[in-house]
Amino acid sequence: MPPGGTARRGGALHLLGVGTALPGEPVDNETLAAALGIASEWMEAFIGTRARHFAVDLAGGQVRWTLEDLCTDAADRALADAGVEPDGVGFVVLATATPDALMPTTAALLADRLGIGGTPVYQLQSGCTGAVQAFALARALLADGAGGGAPGLVVGGDVCARHLDLRQDFRRLPPGTLVNYVLFGDGAGAALVGAAPGPRDARTRAALTHVTHRLDGLGLPPGQRVEWFGAADRASDRPAATEDYKAVEQRVPVMALEVRDELLDACGWPPGSIDHLLPPQLGGRMTERIARELSHGLKWREVSCVAETGNNGNALVFLQLERLLDRIRPGQRALGIAIESSKWIKAGFTVEAPHV
Amino acid sequence: MPPGGTARRGGALHLLGVGTALPGEPVDNETLAAALGIASEWMEAFIGTRARHFAVDLAGGQVRWTLEDLCTDAADRALADAGVEPDGVGFVVLATATPDALMPTTAALLADRLGIGGTPVYQLQSGCTGAVQAFALARALLADGAGGGAPGLVVGGDVCARHLDLRQDFRRLPPGTLVNYVLFGDGAGAALVGAAPGPRDARTRAALTHVTHRLDGLGLPPGQRVEWFGAADRASDRPAATEDYKAVEQRVPVMALEVRDELLDACGWPPGSIDHLLPPQLGGRMTERIARELSHGLKWREVSCVAETGNNGNALVFLQLERLLDRIRPGQRALGIAIESSKWIKAGFTVEAPHV
Repeated sequence: MPPGGTARRGGALHLLGVGTALPGEPVDNETLAAALGIASEWMEAFIGTRARHFAVDLAGGQVRWTLEDLCTDAADRALADAGVEPDGVGFVVLATATPDALMPTTAALLADRLGIGGTPVYQLQSGCTGAVQAFALARALLADGAGGGAPGLVVGGDVCARHLDLRQDFRRLPPGTLVNYVLFGDGAGAALVGAAPGPRDARTRAALTHVTHRLDGLGLPPGQRVEWFGAADRASDRPAATEDYKAVEQRVPVMALEVRDELLDACGWPPGSIDHLLPPQLGGRMTERIARELSHGLKWREVSCVAETGNNGNALVFLQLERLLDRIRPGQRALGIAIESSKWIKAGFTVEAPHV
Repeated sequence: MPPGGTARRGGALHLLGVGTALPGEPVDNETLAAALGIASEWMEAFIGTRARHFAVDLAGGQVRWTLEDLCTDAADRALADAGVEPDGVGFVVLATATPDALMPTTAALLADRLGIGGTPVYQLQSGCTGAVQAFALARALLADGAGGGAPGLVVGGDVCARHLDLRQDFRRLPPGTLVNYVLFGDGAGAALVGAAPGPRDARTRAALTHVTHRLDGLGLPPGQRVEWFGAADRASDRPAATEDYKAVEQRVPVMALEVRDELLDACGWPPGSIDHLLPPQLGGRMTERIARELSHGLKWREVSCVAETGNNGNALVFLQLERLLDRIRPGQRALGIAIESSKWIKAGFTVEAPHV
């Protein structure tokens, strides 16, 4: 019988194992600029993202990893980290903005490939707050007794290959569109979560003690829109993605501060008691700025990945958690914040490593 | 304060209000055949679906309703049926295979349009079992205390307009592809659900007392695949949808029988105690056949809609529930079964109307 146990209402979500997967070698700004036929200097100066990983081969355009591939690798690693076999998983929740197909879900194909059968499987359509939404669902499922007390596998990832059109003339793109090719990347992450702590070492005894997310900015227009095309509108000239960067730049830092204050209030934690900060991962520069504002005057150690991994959406929080678990010490606390700016969603979580 | 209350683990999900929305006038087989330039006789004989609704105008090809439009109408009606204002909703779960865009989610845009802010919002990627998966999540969220005791809005719908390519020569399509244009339709449904019964008449006092779904057929190939296309592969010649009808025809009836037996076992209900059957809604003929097999020798009254509404995926169970609530009498029991055949998922639920 795998670790798991009975969940209490709104209880902690124990991180029994975490794994991530990034496709291929990191693509640095010089390599990316050369592949797109554009200049590279502005990339680090203005965006601050130094590298990213792509599931598609930049030279030939072939897709080398599907989302299912990346999620399988991440999930395999999370299960190995937890020491749990696939048949010990009680349910699967996968969060993504870019499923491999509309149907079947990547979640169902992932479960099948891992050999997890006979359990509930969910796929969330989500962006940068997807991991937090998936954790909230996992906690609810554990509270409801789904999986019969077995832990749940929570997975998040994105692959932008479908929208990564390498045949265009990048020198003719407006800066607002070109920036997407620098900001985004591909990847996946996974965590096995249970209502009771795992039996193993301190690294796997950290828990998500508070998980929250909610729709914000009622009536405000979306900050981003990403389309999909069907057989009837493949020839459509609608742009695949549009952004309102001004709105994102203005609103995300404000929303992040609000989440910080709400979480500290809800937990009754004095700001000085926090050790680690997992800030929103938009791009290197913006994340740096937001982290500075969030931890203003406090000794919160920043746990970020975006400057090296690119913004890979639903994978980000897992990449941050993996780094956090390597650093967090018994008795320490961490605060995580994620903001979705397509339609505005505030999300946050706390991590605690118990005293040994 | 709206009706809601504290959920117990695995507890009943009370149907406080139900609403549905079908776009425009029903399109009968003669009208559809004329629009596609094909013969109509085989449609009723082989498929058994007599009419469906389309969000797109068959003559001009214009999209007249988005999924968001249909879900808004259905949700408005469910809230009115429950007598609950949007600010009394604790969370939103929307299930669909065909979101209006990848991001933002239709769920977030729906919540915004209804004026539901500050609550958790989830969107499930799902097919014919989507409503059941969404109900299971809603029950878990109520058990976990999401929404602070307020009821949750569960919505499901599909719009096939993106894949409804009206410019092709339908006479040249193979029967296996052509059948999709007869089988499918558009629509949405919604239910307001709470952990405690509503204060109103018997119609709104029925509850989902058992909700179950799980991945089945480990290792079997998918029975259906529906693609989406991105900016990089709009010119792809991959087919938008492929089906293995033989597999669907063979497996769905068997899986439906298994769900029936599992539900009866789990509830400890003798087959003779069931009054109404909500069978899987694939197409008129196949549903008829499955319903006959399921209720073999028993006086279960069939509650189906597919022959008049077409297979509108995530909306179907809501359309059936709306019909059931008009018929179910105090003390009666109903059994509902849904099967997802892209990757195989078994789902089922029971409805009970308490004695007055």
